[in-house]
Amino acid sequence: MYRLRTKLSISFLIVSLIVVLMISALANFFIKKQFTQYAIENKNRKIESILSLLADRYLDWGRQWDINGLESIGINALNDGLFLRIRDNQNSLLFDAWVHDNQLCSQMMDQFALAMRSRMGRDMGGYLEQTYPLLLSGQAIGSVDIGYYGPYFYTENDLRFLETLNLLLAAAGFISLFIAVGFGWLFTRQLTRPIVRVINATEKIADGQYNERLIYDSSTKELHDLTNSVNSLALKLENQNRLRKQLTSDVAHELRTPVTILRNHLEALLDGTWEMSAERLDTCHSEIMRITNLINDLEKLTTLDQICYRLEKSRFDLSQLLQ
Amino acid sequence: MYRLRTKLSISFLIVSLIVVLMISALANFFIKKQFTQYAIENKNRKIESILSLLADRYLDWGRQWDINGLESIGINALNDGLFLRIRDNQNSLLFDAWVHDNQLCSQMMDQFALAMRSRMGRDMGGYLEQTYPLLLSGQAIGSVDIGYYGPYFYTENDLRFLETLNLLLAAAGFISLFIAVGFGWLFTRQLTRPIVRVINATEKIADGQYNERLIYDSSTKELHDLTNSVNSLALKLENQNRLRKQLTSDVAHELRTPVTILRNHLEALLDGTWEMSAERLDTCHSEIMRITNLINDLEKLTTLDQICYRLEKSRFDLSQLLQ
Repeated sequence: MYRLRTKLSISFLIVSLIVVLMISALANFFIKKQFTQYAIENKNRKIESILSLLADRYLDWGRQWDINGLESIGINALNDGLFLRIRDNQNSLLFDAWVHDNQLCSQMMDQFALAMRSRMGRDMGGYLEQTYPLLLSGQAIGSVDIGYYGPYFYTENDLRFLETLNLLLAAAGFISLFIAVGFGWLFTRQLTRPIVRVINATEKIADGQYNERLIYDSSTKELHDLTNSVNSLALKLENQNRLRKQLTSDVAHELRTPVTILRNHLEALLDGTWEMSAERLDTCHSEIMRITNLINDLEKLTTLDQICYRLEKSRFDLSQLLQ
Repeated sequence: MYRLRTKLSISFLIVSLIVVLMISALANFFIKKQFTQYAIENKNRKIESILSLLADRYLDWGRQWDINGLESIGINALNDGLFLRIRDNQNSLLFDAWVHDNQLCSQMMDQFALAMRSRMGRDMGGYLEQTYPLLLSGQAIGSVDIGYYGPYFYTENDLRFLETLNLLLAAAGFISLFIAVGFGWLFTRQLTRPIVRVINATEKIADGQYNERLIYDSSTKELHDLTNSVNSLALKLENQNRLRKQLTSDVAHELRTPVTILRNHLEALLDGTWEMSAERLDTCHSEIMRITNLINDLEKLTTLDQICYRLEKSRFDLSQLLQ
């Protein structure tokens, strides 16, 4: 058996918890999805930047590639998780990240796979490669295959951000829950106090304090009704109690006079103060009749009590009566 | 005047709303703060990448800079919002973004300022510059001033992500609120139903149906108590009602016999069936005394009713009694 307050508090807590968990889960899901978009967009921008840097390494005057420069860009791109394989327009290889440092590239791919698998919870990608043409004023001067862990990957910084995201949402949820529980507690107080007050007063009345009345009126319809009902019950009990006492006292009082007269008459006749006469006996008889009538009335009252009175309503045409 | 259910529903709604608003505001605040960290970190990584690209443009064998390459990197860096000013170790200018395309640079700064001010809500930055040495195997071969809109700035993509963040949090909040309201509704039903049931039965009893009893027992303490109280009130009303009827009927019945005897005697004496005698009068007198005693008992009952009985407890030494 729980207190109303406890039940209400638990309800508020559960609803708050549902909101917090739902919103955290949804926000986490939505934001991660959005962040994936963001990461893909970032990768595309990086690729664009690399393409422009690479095209600039075509030394127009000598009509040849600055191999040194391509290598520098290719090595730099590794930091962004991009593996470059650059060819000239004769399709001969100018730079290949995998040839340049195969061990490093394999190691990086393993790291990406591990990081994505462990943090995203499933095996969700592999090595992807896409070929882009290198253009100089609209003319093809070569091509580059850009490989990456796909369909998308997160850098250290991305992963750190996503990890913190969970923590932040948890923190926000925890703080919100705390505040919600506080408000829930206030509401619980506000809601249960009048109920408990009415109930306590009802208990007092049931305990025999029929003169007790509920005086606080509630703005809640049900409590207002309950207050009225309980007050009406108390009033009825008090009235019935009074009525019963009144009845015995009235009956005794009503009987007292004729019985006393009768008794006095008989005693006067018995001790010889009075002469026996028909007139005297007649008086005694009329007193007896009064008592008998009283008893009859009392019996009528009993039968009347057992009949239920009911107001039977019917339509009545007043104008007909007036005519 | 509101229904208990309405009040409770509103309370649940308010608590849910508080949770949703709090968590959304907090998550938004925390995540934006964290994203700033993320953006700064990304900018630093970009700078590192640029520094490494620049250092590679020092053509060691000729002990001179590849001006063409530096320019390519410098122009490319503009896409990331970074303004480069590169000098050699004699401090002579090799490349300056602001000299290269002053109009573009000013335009970009204006755009950054506008975007940051309008989306972050306040004027919060300006042009900042930081100088980094360019090193080749630990030896200074030049330096670069990297300018940017600081203390941090968001790219188009960053701003798009942040904008979506608000939408996502609002969506998550809306969905959660919807589900919470559903649960709140269920809880409200669960909580108010037994209260309303008890109150309705109480109204019926107060309406005169004293034989009505609450039979549903609630697992809520207050409602269990209220049920008991109301049932006890109904029982008392029923008993009092019965008692009053019983009393009138008992009194009438008890009086009937002696009164009838008395009446018969007197009538027999009156119509001369019986001779008047002291013995006959004595019988009449004893019947009168019986009636008088009955009335006395009735009066005693009335006075007894008016005295309140109270159990007065006191310690009593049983061993003393035994000795």
